[in-house]
Amino acid sequence: MRFGTALALLATIAVLPWGRASIGAQTPSLGEILSASPAADWRPLDPENTLYIQLPAGRVIIELSPDFSPRHVANVRALARAHYWDGVQVTRVQDDYVAQWGWSDSVAHPKGDAVDAVDQAEYERAAGSLPFTPLPDPDSYAPFTGFTNGFPAARDSAGTTWMLHCYGAVGVARGSAPDNGSGRDLYVVIGQSPRHLDRNVAMIGRVVSGIELLSALPRGTGALGFYATPAERTPITSIRTGSDLPAAERAPLEALRTGSGTFKKVIESRRFRREEWFVQPTGRINVCNVPLPVRAKTAR
Amino acid sequence: MRFGTALALLATIAVLPWGRASIGAQTPSLGEILSASPAADWRPLDPENTLYIQLPAGRVIIELSPDFSPRHVANVRALARAHYWDGVQVTRVQDDYVAQWGWSDSVAHPKGDAVDAVDQAEYERAAGSLPFTPLPDPDSYAPFTGFTNGFPAARDSAGTTWMLHCYGAVGVARGSAPDNGSGRDLYVVIGQSPRHLDRNVAMIGRVVSGIELLSALPRGTGALGFYATPAERTPITSIRTGSDLPAAERAPLEALRTGSGTFKKVIESRRFRREEWFVQPTGRINVCNVPLPVRAKTAR
Repeated sequence: MRFGTALALLATIAVLPWGRASIGAQTPSLGEILSASPAADWRPLDPENTLYIQLPAGRVIIELSPDFSPRHVANVRALARAHYWDGVQVTRVQDDYVAQWGWSDSVAHPKGDAVDAVDQAEYERAAGSLPFTPLPDPDSYAPFTGFTNGFPAARDSAGTTWMLHCYGAVGVARGSAPDNGSGRDLYVVIGQSPRHLDRNVAMIGRVVSGIELLSALPRGTGALGFYATPAERTPITSIRTGSDLPAAERAPLEALRTGSGTFKKVIESRRFRREEWFVQPTGRINVCNVPLPVRAKTAR
Repeated sequence: MRFGTALALLATIAVLPWGRASIGAQTPSLGEILSASPAADWRPLDPENTLYIQLPAGRVIIELSPDFSPRHVANVRALARAHYWDGVQVTRVQDDYVAQWGWSDSVAHPKGDAVDAVDQAEYERAAGSLPFTPLPDPDSYAPFTGFTNGFPAARDSAGTTWMLHCYGAVGVARGSAPDNGSGRDLYVVIGQSPRHLDRNVAMIGRVVSGIELLSALPRGTGALGFYATPAERTPITSIRTGSDLPAAERAPLEALRTGSGTFKKVIESRRFRREEWFVQPTGRINVCNVPLPVRAKTAR
């Protein structure tokens, strides 16, 4: 679906009255849609674009987003390959905001932290030929919202696109001066989407598995949710790309293609909730409330 | 501010281009605004509309919302007064969704659960003379959003108003058949605002202190985030209204009045972020991203 369609859909919704939505007669449920989906609507995660964070309690798995931040993603990949983060810690968990891990001014890299800031901000880019599956409903922050190759994204009428701070989104922490961040310190959104951060920071992907290993950590009691004492920090054993792990240690995950017909059905099933529980099917959705299905590949 | 103003503001924003916001020249920061606020812009929490949930690790404090759900709030107050929930447990924590506590079909009240469902749904009401401080920015779910007596709320052009499922919102769990819930089982939002629940369930208030005691609990691994085994549940010692606690045990909290001039400045300071860190001040906000300041009263 091309960008022109988003404009057309938005123009349509703008003239509709804001009354109660009437429920679609036979909208199938999310489970029914996924069960009926053709195998071709799913894509395996690319090991080179998958980041595994090993914690004592399990693994957090991130899909990287080189379409939006190629230099930052290449930098993160190189840091993982150099085992740069081995022994790093989760240093900050701020309720309804972010969990953050990495080396920083207060937690120095044991061999010295000589990583340069990435030379481009990559806060946004020209949409060019990137695919875009638009949502028809309005958004508080951006003129058009939708999905590009598995990631929530926005566009404007000038043809600029950017990734969104939805739950699970991963960004490159940076200092208060607007440099671009070195990647030594990363964060993930664990609360209401802080969309005011959009276009203010480079984003490198989103968590596709294991976010509860970060989102359920105790909140830090220091300023901005940093832990008050080092003992409170959670250790991270290692951070690796999938391609640097033995094949047997990679998670066999596949993601629903956001350009697929199945994903468009997923969107409609969530805009109109037809389950018995719902009195009011709503008929609208925010981009950060649309599920992005990821599942374990099964033998076929 | 009356409802007519919301319409006027929305009409204004609708014709603005969706370009980058330019930063307000001298927007003060949130901290500066609150420091300069007059005492009259704050209101003490009413002990009769404050609910204290005592956990082993501390207290969760909820402000009740009788404007929106008078029967459900009266029911919850009566249940607390009868010590109905003493010894209850947190039975469900679903990541990016809700934490839930109470008696249920699977966790029966020790003396039998004979609480009837409340006789009115209270999912929405006529706005009548309720105050409303509107936001000028669009929302994905509702025609008009803003704040009523401390709570995020929406309105439509028919004069109906309803509370919103923002982070920290507390609702009355109910079964899959659309009854109204008995209040025996309550939940709080701990992730991206699940606004599709709006107008599908009665809401009784929002957490004003201690939400991290619920939001950082381990996630349940059973269906819908229910704990797989009873041993995983967190015990709740008691749930009481402030008016049933000795005065010395009440938290000395006061909330910023959402109809005050100070609150309007808070909204603008969050719509336009002027802190040095921000490259892009955004110039817009979603109703669930507006902070609702609550502070400890200090002697004056």
